[in-house]
Amino acid sequence: MVEPQLTSLLEQMTLDEKIAQLLQLAGPFYKGSKDNGEITGPMAEMGITPADIENSGSVLGVSGAEDVIRIQEEYLKTNRLGIPLLFMADVVHGYKTIFPVPLAIGCSWDLELAEKSAEIAAKEAAVSGVHVTFAPMVDLVRDPRWGRVMESTGEDPYLNSEFARAFVRGFQGDNLEEDASRVAACVKHFAAYGAPEGGRDYNTVNMSERQLRESYLPAYKAALDEGCEMVMTSFNTVDGIPPSGNKWLMRDLLRGEWNFDGVVISDWGAVKELIPHGVAEDEKEAAVKAIHAGVDIEMMTACYVKNLKQLVETNEVDEAVIDEAVLRILQLKQKLGLFENPYRGADVNLEQEVIMSKEHRQISRELATKSVVLLKNENVLPLKREQKIALIGPFGESGDILGPWSWRGSKEEAIQLAEGLLPKTRALTIAKGCDIETVTEEQLEAAVKSALDADVIVLALGEDSEMSGEAGCRADIRLPESQLVLVSRLKQLGKPMVAVLFNGRPLDLHGVIDQTDAVLEAWYPGTEGGAAVADILFGDANPSGKLTMSFPYSVGQVPVYYNGYNTGRPKLNPDVKERYLSQYLDIPNEPLLPFGFGLSYTTFTCTDFKLSSDTLTSDHSLTLTGVVTNTGEVAGEEVVQLYIRDLSGEVVRPVKELKDYEKITLQPGESKEITFTIREEQLRYYHSDLQFTSDQGSFEAYIGPDSQNVTTFSFKLLK
Amino acid sequence: MVEPQLTSLLEQMTLDEKIAQLLQLAGPFYKGSKDNGEITGPMAEMGITPADIENSGSVLGVSGAEDVIRIQEEYLKTNRLGIPLLFMADVVHGYKTIFPVPLAIGCSWDLELAEKSAEIAAKEAAVSGVHVTFAPMVDLVRDPRWGRVMESTGEDPYLNSEFARAFVRGFQGDNLEEDASRVAACVKHFAAYGAPEGGRDYNTVNMSERQLRESYLPAYKAALDEGCEMVMTSFNTVDGIPPSGNKWLMRDLLRGEWNFDGVVISDWGAVKELIPHGVAEDEKEAAVKAIHAGVDIEMMTACYVKNLKQLVETNEVDEAVIDEAVLRILQLKQKLGLFENPYRGADVNLEQEVIMSKEHRQISRELATKSVVLLKNENVLPLKREQKIALIGPFGESGDILGPWSWRGSKEEAIQLAEGLLPKTRALTIAKGCDIETVTEEQLEAAVKSALDADVIVLALGEDSEMSGEAGCRADIRLPESQLVLVSRLKQLGKPMVAVLFNGRPLDLHGVIDQTDAVLEAWYPGTEGGAAVADILFGDANPSGKLTMSFPYSVGQVPVYYNGYNTGRPKLNPDVKERYLSQYLDIPNEPLLPFGFGLSYTTFTCTDFKLSSDTLTSDHSLTLTGVVTNTGEVAGEEVVQLYIRDLSGEVVRPVKELKDYEKITLQPGESKEITFTIREEQLRYYHSDLQFTSDQGSFEAYIGPDSQNVTTFSFKLLK
Repeated sequence: MVEPQLTSLLEQMTLDEKIAQLLQLAGPFYKGSKDNGEITGPMAEMGITPADIENSGSVLGVSGAEDVIRIQEEYLKTNRLGIPLLFMADVVHGYKTIFPVPLAIGCSWDLELAEKSAEIAAKEAAVSGVHVTFAPMVDLVRDPRWGRVMESTGEDPYLNSEFARAFVRGFQGDNLEEDASRVAACVKHFAAYGAPEGGRDYNTVNMSERQLRESYLPAYKAALDEGCEMVMTSFNTVDGIPPSGNKWLMRDLLRGEWNFDGVVISDWGAVKELIPHGVAEDEKEAAVKAIHAGVDIEMMTACYVKNLKQLVETNEVDEAVIDEAVLRILQLKQKLGLFENPYRGADVNLEQEVIMSKEHRQISRELATKSVVLLKNENVLPLKREQKIALIGPFGESGDILGPWSWRGSKEEAIQLAEGLLPKTRALTIAKGCDIETVTEEQLEAAVKSALDADVIVLALGEDSEMSGEAGCRADIRLPESQLVLVSRLKQLGKPMVAVLFNGRPLDLHGVIDQTDAVLEAWYPGTEGGAAVADILFGDANPSGKLTMSFPYSVGQVPVYYNGYNTGRPKLNPDVKERYLSQYLDIPNEPLLPFGFGLSYTTFTCTDFKLSSDTLTSDHSLTLTGVVTNTGEVAGEEVVQLYIRDLSGEVVRPVKELKDYEKITLQPGESKEITFTIREEQLRYYHSDLQFTSDQGSFEAYIGPDSQNVTTFSFKLLK
Repeated sequence: MVEPQLTSLLEQMTLDEKIAQLLQLAGPFYKGSKDNGEITGPMAEMGITPADIENSGSVLGVSGAEDVIRIQEEYLKTNRLGIPLLFMADVVHGYKTIFPVPLAIGCSWDLELAEKSAEIAAKEAAVSGVHVTFAPMVDLVRDPRWGRVMESTGEDPYLNSEFARAFVRGFQGDNLEEDASRVAACVKHFAAYGAPEGGRDYNTVNMSERQLRESYLPAYKAALDEGCEMVMTSFNTVDGIPPSGNKWLMRDLLRGEWNFDGVVISDWGAVKELIPHGVAEDEKEAAVKAIHAGVDIEMMTACYVKNLKQLVETNEVDEAVIDEAVLRILQLKQKLGLFENPYRGADVNLEQEVIMSKEHRQISRELATKSVVLLKNENVLPLKREQKIALIGPFGESGDILGPWSWRGSKEEAIQLAEGLLPKTRALTIAKGCDIETVTEEQLEAAVKSALDADVIVLALGEDSEMSGEAGCRADIRLPESQLVLVSRLKQLGKPMVAVLFNGRPLDLHGVIDQTDAVLEAWYPGTEGGAAVADILFGDANPSGKLTMSFPYSVGQVPVYYNGYNTGRPKLNPDVKERYLSQYLDIPNEPLLPFGFGLSYTTFTCTDFKLSSDTLTSDHSLTLTGVVTNTGEVAGEEVVQLYIRDLSGEVVRPVKELKDYEKITLQPGESKEITFTIREEQLRYYHSDLQFTSDQGSFEAYIGPDSQNVTTFSFKLLK
């Protein structure tokens, strides 16, 4: 179907049909759904009519080729104009083959594998009948109290933007219409959902427009530049107005300035939430504000279907505004080829073949090994085959390592750490030691007993997946007390201890990192997690992950992030005792572990780095070239990071900004020359008048293996 | 001297003399100062010339009639045009008679006494030769990690504004020229210094202009509306630009929109700090930015004196801009009568009579009794004369109860708690129990021993004054561990325990409030602190203070403040277990103790409150009238608070905003009718277009003894 046909289709639609096209409902509303009729609680109170359902434009949270095909069949039986349903779902870090959580994927700094993971997720989802995934989530995050940091790739606008592009490419491929193994992506949560006050989900966000543009918007923009088909509104406020009713954000900026012409969808219930937010008195006002803000699809509330018709009749809403929204939805359906094949991709036979295929699991395992971050290692890792190992902790035999938003993933199918270790060693004793949040003396004693004969203790600790994810916010970001008690008790044995952490946020690691000889941040590593971690523990894979979110010294230091500002009284030397500096009396300014940090089983040096010139102009870029050498005994990968600082701007500039990086593989003793190009475009920033330009003056470039240990180079930008 | 004479004086000044007039130096630079010549460290490196000193316009940090007179005499000997020096100093909560810290004064909700305290501070300062005080500090504060919260009156824009006005009235009186017992006030720190990220002093501040206007600017504006003569720039950034170089803030808003024509002074070194902030490459650029932003006086750096002349010669700065600044300073000197009497107020004989007079100390004691807040009381307070009391803790015999910024106050002259108690009881044993941050087993044992025979234990705990104030920031806001250990040890004795807290910030009181029977927040109560607290403990005064800053449940809850926003998924009932709400998994959303909270030895009821109508218009205000009754056994004071909520706005509105309150005294059994008037002006707020208007629609009014326990009334605003 081509554009004129869509317009003609639109003309045939009644106002009721148009309005229903803007409605998105969950599976249970639909005939043919195996859950049909299971509409209880708030769903039952929405006031949805059978006609609304029969004409609704899209459905969320349904997958499985059989289900999707049946629902679509039933739907098309009664839909007057034969406009197929769009099926959308939360396929975030894998469909059924679960990859590490996005924060972990961020730590891989591996865009190709990230893209591949999205491609696999798309493939599994598409064959199960899903057309659109509510991903990638690209919210910049700086507050580990917030449960959804695990869904983001971290605290850096540049890196988040690169991952946003990679995920979009992976989900969508080059041609959605022709490639039914891909799904449309929906970037979220627009905008700045990742900055809730107090790290409490859904809470107020406030910042200046300049700050919004500088730090928070780039990754959404990058996803759209990559062709992302959809945008989801966020739950928070943006300068006092929730995006689902924020005309400036959604119309002026997104559609006007950025020229986005795809579909905008509200997050679950977010249109009606304009009422509790206090920017709409009732559902009618919520509908007016949302449609005028440019929200095309209302997810799981009925403000549109119950009010828009009357609002058109009273001229409070122009029907043309509704037409626009409907047309965008029809265009997406067209782009996905649904008018030609409403069952696009869904294939009961292919499902068996594609989902959780050996290849998919292998890629998941590979990405997991690249996502874990070695935080400490004092002569204990890798483990040796001959060592007797005591695996102790609530995550030793737990499948709860997929992380939140693993939807169709099954904990039962995840490779537990014990399962991962067993193929590598038979000298393994296992004890739980404690539960996630409780511990008994019996558990401790059993743990001690199981460790008595071991050469090394591997602690499997962490947060259960309910402790992060949406609405999974914690004011205390340490491991639960029960686990710290376990660590402390085992410490008394005087044996080497390795802590493996399964969790969704940067933690205050006091009580763990100071008590153990090695710490491996495994995050929620996904379906192959136990195997991947075992590969790392035994040196079958060399850790190469680098943190993309700072680990705070304590929750009292939050927010702490590497790309902050200098202040007028910076504490340049942590050892200097001087009162009137920007500092805490009781803890350092530096995070416990900085952005970009991660260890390897080998060592690297960066030497002979030189700038091609000490000046730069718009026409002439600079290069920074040097040699990276693997000075250790085993092959490994290093992420060499390039940061830049503008020493003086019209507004304050971050003390460091990641501008580029290179992840390279080196054999023992091997050296490679790498070159970074520094261009004037990389020096641009938002001025107080919101112009995005660069200023002449002095800059510094930094090269290093993380954001703290860097070598400095000076240059000037001339105009 | 009148205006034309000032202009003529200005015309006689050389450019060098004008520029030097903009310089403010500390006492040691001046001949005649007892510290003259003691210029070391950074001061020595400033590059100040003798001519700069001889023509400098003002001096800071000097007081004492003898010193001031001598410095002025020496200065006038060499100053060509005989323009006297202005003497400025940090007289924040008292000069030598120290009043409670401003956060404590805020808790009194007593504007008259607050004004009186400023008047006394002015009187003591003026007689000591001070012309201008760097107060009031009116920064809105929401983060107890920040050390300077003790200098603010709290988290409420309305209350802060009322106190700002009271302090300005107290300092300045009605006529500065005629009343030499007053001093000019300098409101600070403009703007939004109270919102540093992470609660770390001098750190970045970022918020939208709308938020700035809604919450942070009102108190500064109120001070200026009251006629405050000066404004001090803050150390932080305001949307990326430090105020000392922020033309929008200082010229467009402060001077343009607000019509402020008084003197603007930088905070200490803040002009030069434009360089480390990264908005100026060097001192020259810092000078250009500061003078163009409208900073008249540069405090303690030499960017102006070293660069402005050349900048005028190269036409980078117009001499007229400098003339303006100089004229404003001359005008202030004229307003203070310095041209007629350069020794204004300074009087060696009067100093003896005025400073620390009996009356001043009495007012300080009275204000202290009204500033302490009773946080918990389970049948233990007031103490009975016949009880044997064990006074235990590092603050039992400490004079460190004046708090930061007590400049001329002397800890040795402060009434310690033990001294306050002794006139009331002789059955008193005293033990230190621990030091502020350390404890030994011997100390604990001595404490236990001293308590064995007691009927009640009075714990005197807190933070030493270095732990708050400027640069006194803490990431952990509990009492130091040593003191919690002491509490826990004494708890084992099973005796009634009363904790008296001396500190400068809202604390996480876990480990204290749950372990004791009563908690009295004494803050830093000032010179008469021990006497005032003893009055309260023995019931000679009835506590009436109410918190003006929320006490967080834990540091992981920060920021928590009563006037936040509802969000789209509010947790309306703390007992409801539902995941997808804005909440933490591990702690409540509510602070441990809310804004407005404080107990009394008596009880009050608010009954029969009624709205005069359920609608309101611009022309017709509403009244809310009811009866307050003292239902207890002793006389007491109650602060009845009126909050309003706009249920639906163009932007989200706070769930409560304090709009008025009444503090009334009632005898046992006595009732009084009180009436609040609700006017349309009180319903105005900043819309997204920054217009300050009200909207028709639904509102709620709340009456209660604190911000949580309220009775609700509904009304509508009609247009």
